[in-house]
Amino acid sequence: MSLLVVGTVAFDAIETPFGKTDKIVGGAASYIALAASYFHKDISLVSVVGDDFPQDFLNILKNKGTKLDGLQIKKGEKSFFWAGKYHNDLNSRDTLETQLNVLEKFDPIVPENAKQVDFLMLGNLVPAVQQKVISQMTKRPKLIVLDTMNFWMDIALDDLKTTLTMVDVLTINDSEARQLSGEYSLVKAAQKILKMGPSVLVIKKGEHGALLFNKEEVFFAPALPLEDVYDPTGAGDSFAGGFIGYLAKTKDVSFENMKRAIIFGSAMASFTVEKFGTERLIDLSANDIEERVQEFVDLVQFDISLV
Amino acid sequence: MSLLVVGTVAFDAIETPFGKTDKIVGGAASYIALAASYFHKDISLVSVVGDDFPQDFLNILKNKGTKLDGLQIKKGEKSFFWAGKYHNDLNSRDTLETQLNVLEKFDPIVPENAKQVDFLMLGNLVPAVQQKVISQMTKRPKLIVLDTMNFWMDIALDDLKTTLTMVDVLTINDSEARQLSGEYSLVKAAQKILKMGPSVLVIKKGEHGALLFNKEEVFFAPALPLEDVYDPTGAGDSFAGGFIGYLAKTKDVSFENMKRAIIFGSAMASFTVEKFGTERLIDLSANDIEERVQEFVDLVQFDISLV
Repeated sequence: MSLLVVGTVAFDAIETPFGKTDKIVGGAASYIALAASYFHKDISLVSVVGDDFPQDFLNILKNKGTKLDGLQIKKGEKSFFWAGKYHNDLNSRDTLETQLNVLEKFDPIVPENAKQVDFLMLGNLVPAVQQKVISQMTKRPKLIVLDTMNFWMDIALDDLKTTLTMVDVLTINDSEARQLSGEYSLVKAAQKILKMGPSVLVIKKGEHGALLFNKEEVFFAPALPLEDVYDPTGAGDSFAGGFIGYLAKTKDVSFENMKRAIIFGSAMASFTVEKFGTERLIDLSANDIEERVQEFVDLVQFDISLV
Repeated sequence: MSLLVVGTVAFDAIETPFGKTDKIVGGAASYIALAASYFHKDISLVSVVGDDFPQDFLNILKNKGTKLDGLQIKKGEKSFFWAGKYHNDLNSRDTLETQLNVLEKFDPIVPENAKQVDFLMLGNLVPAVQQKVISQMTKRPKLIVLDTMNFWMDIALDDLKTTLTMVDVLTINDSEARQLSGEYSLVKAAQKILKMGPSVLVIKKGEHGALLFNKEEVFFAPALPLEDVYDPTGAGDSFAGGFIGYLAKTKDVSFENMKRAIIFGSAMASFTVEKFGTERLIDLSANDIEERVQEFVDLVQFDISLV
């Protein structure tokens, strides 16, 4: 039951009301692979970096069980770089700089040993590139999870719609769900989006939790009220990593099990935002995660006996 | 175990993206008393209206078990009137008109038979008027719940701070909690506010649910994702009414029971927003409420067995 993770491995420079970083390691696939590695040890990564990318971080991924055969290292080229500044409420941000670099001509190549994985996690990327990955699979994965963003809805909506027909689970945030569906009510938005391809939709609401929809049911996972949130970067990717990592571990893609997976995903996101970049995701223990999940259980547990 | 409700009984004119009303019945105490009446039948109301206020609505309150001895009807004067327009996201609104009318000189008089109630719900009003009510009680209620708003933080902060020292539970929204505490993190905001007097704080987050804090614990109640929200007016007051109505019915002010009370409060709010004004709160059945609460149970129920 192996897991293939596709997405950016990159540099970020982040400014929040609580501080500022130089270039640090980021990228959707970095967060996804790290978060998933706490649940599942057979992960393959497909991505691209320049030869400026630190071997140290690649060693961390490798030591946590991620195979790097599918990671292209482009000699003489530079890694993808994003710089952004969060507003005071941490819910919105401005992009200060984007350098596509190696990402501009990224042509994903799925290694032979990853073409038959059961779980495929497509991190946010050009929809056409996400399709290229799916088309290389020699066996339809048991579950394909797609993450995307408003940017692709603006400039590549047709491609995105095609990709949507090829996946099982879509993860987007609430404003993206509204944009994609043209509906303000998230209930109506979900029902429209579920007609576009995916059988399950996850709407991420940041500090307000996440909603899980299929055509008949809805589940809500809260976000943990945190004393300090330093940097929201990577929260959504850590969430996706915990989600698919837990599913790959338990080999169960039922809606009931996805509820549990969302709680584990939310727990991983709650760690990520406590420090800048990937730092907090590097050294967690099984016990840290268990305690954190217990906080989610306690947070929403109530006992109403209806007559 | 009777319940005293204090607050406005008034007229509203409301505009939302889904329609527009003429003058309809509103006011914090109207929503609170209606919502509470589904749980508790021994309610006293202290408020003021002009002789323009419809007897029909007062009859509805009376028929649902609310005593009106404490309702002053001012001859030749007009009832409080508020007109507002909600923005497209329904989370923010502009006040178009406020006519204080009878509210300008409102001097609350608690009837003799309500001076020893066990539960006192102070709806949003001038903090000094809220204090006047407390000072008329001849026995300290078992539980005093205070609702207030940013307006009083702007123009009567000292009075509000004094009132806070006299109550047990404060209900405010997230931006008000941030304003009152000067803290962005709601966890930190709650801990600061809990040093100002109340032993329990409810932070209302509208469509994002509600948080319940005491000094040691936190509980989160989701809001139900609704297909259609027509009019958010009165949602917070219906929430407060369901909350204190349930507590008055069960005679249990423990944190555990407040968790249940918040779910019932959220259920009442979820009905209110489905139609304009108080309409949806008039004719609910016990079965309607039970089914709605079951939806809350289903929404957040998950089963994680940690080793």
